Amino acid sequence: MNQSENIKIAIVGTGNVASHLVKAFLISDCKVKQILSRDIHKAGILVKNTDIQPIDNPNMLDKELDLVILAIQDDALNSDFLNSLPKNFFVAHTSGSVDISVLENFKSFGVFYPLQTFSKVREINYNSIPICIEANNIENENFLLQLASKISKDIRKIDSEQRKQIHLAAVFACNFTNYLFHISEQILKEKNLDFEILFPLLEETIQKVKHDSPRKMQTGPAVRNDRKIMQKHIEMLGNNPDYQMIYTLLSEKIQELK
Amino acid sequence: MNQSENIKIAIVGTGNVASHLVKAFLISDCKVKQILSRDIHKAGILVKNTDIQPIDNPNMLDKELDLVILAIQDDALNSDFLNSLPKNFFVAHTSGSVDISVLENFKSFGVFYPLQTFSKVREINYNSIPICIEANNIENENFLLQLASKISKDIRKIDSEQRKQIHLAAVFACNFTNYLFHISEQILKEKNLDFEILFPLLEETIQKVKHDSPRKMQTGPAVRNDRKIMQKHIEMLGNNPDYQMIYTLLSEKIQELK
Repeated sequence: MNQSENIKIAIVGTGNVASHLVKAFLISDCKVKQILSRDIHKAGILVKNTDIQPIDNPNMLDKELDLVILAIQDDALNSDFLNSLPKNFFVAHTSGSVDISVLENFKSFGVFYPLQTFSKVREINYNSIPICIEANNIENENFLLQLASKISKDIRKIDSEQRKQIHLAAVFACNFTNYLFHISEQILKEKNLDFEILFPLLEETIQKVKHDSPRKMQTGPAVRNDRKIMQKHIEMLGNNPDYQMIYTLLSEKIQELK
Repeated sequence: MNQSENIKIAIVGTGNVASHLVKAFLISDCKVKQILSRDIHKAGILVKNTDIQPIDNPNMLDKELDLVILAIQDDALNSDFLNSLPKNFFVAHTSGSVDISVLENFKSFGVFYPLQTFSKVREINYNSIPICIEANNIENENFLLQLASKISKDIRKIDSEQRKQIHLAAVFACNFTNYLFHISEQILKEKNLDFEILFPLLEETIQKVKHDSPRKMQTGPAVRNDRKIMQKHIEMLGNNPDYQMIYTLLSEKIQELK
């Protein structure tokens, strides 16, 4: 392994995870040498104003690379694609839900999972993103831990079982939560109200669970068992049976909280 | 009406809304003169280290009061309680879901609804909380707007229909969201992981919807229509049919997003 100052990596992919990783490494002392994508045009856009080489063929990967990060969708981590990569590389994927074992035919392999929701339109401060590390041996694990520490101060050793569990928890805490925000926005629109009126409430909802467990922070008609209000709300949702169903199910489960 | 510097109010109630209101007014130039509660002991605790008078009888309300704020639970805003109050007062309730008309027997009446989730254990910066104002006439509305501006910079005229809609939207965005956080915490616990690993993700989930509509910010397996992952997740939730049901319902609805 090279000294950290000289770590040379390639990133496969041009999506949200790949592009945020490139940005994070650009301000670190690690060197992203190449971006590999089937779509050389997309790779070209991503490396704009950098000296990173865009490539579209795995055989063009630099033999001197210390690591190839596979920042591609779960479905793309299939055997067809993996077989196209030279087996003597150290490869790590960035998926929350794919087992480390899919990479077991490589000489060295691991996982480099940044636990965050990425979008094209928002800059991310990588420094506070938990990066979950796993590798096929201690030496490689230490290498990935060292690499992760170049871009974040929150580095964790997490095995595949734990990582999948974290990913599942994140679907509830982030994806489903976002969908509830969507419902809120739709409900407000019906009375010509803007979603931004809820921003201070959203902020406080997060701050509260940072303070103590969500169970203790539960508020609202369901946990108070205020049936009159719940009945009113279900009537108000009369023109949307889907929202009624979600309201009813979540309220029932909240009422069952011990 | 008195000059704003001399606004004298009484607050009915000793719960979360009442106690945060008292704190907010204490650092304003409005004067909380009395706290009314059936439980004089609780009122005594709330007024500790202030010159506010704790009372337990509506007949003890100071005749010079400009406003009596009813910071009590929705159920407590019933005719028994309201009939016990002298009708010549200006009263305003703080509920998101109760119509202004319940107060129509008073000479002056209105609503003073702070849109926030309050808990005993957390200090609140009232300054950024939207306060929704409604009143029986323009003069009283202006008075409440003026009063609200003493403790917050976000004051809005909102009628009862809109306010109920906001309250319903808040149940989805805050109460249900908090319950999803509870599920996340439980899922993490199964693998001895702490909920705090999700904090940066929660923060970013909020920041994203401040940037653009939740619909555009939706991520995750459901919106990608990644059936393999969804199936895996449902299997992982095998020991909890409730969580499976919630996962399935919300994923289905996210998949139907246009």
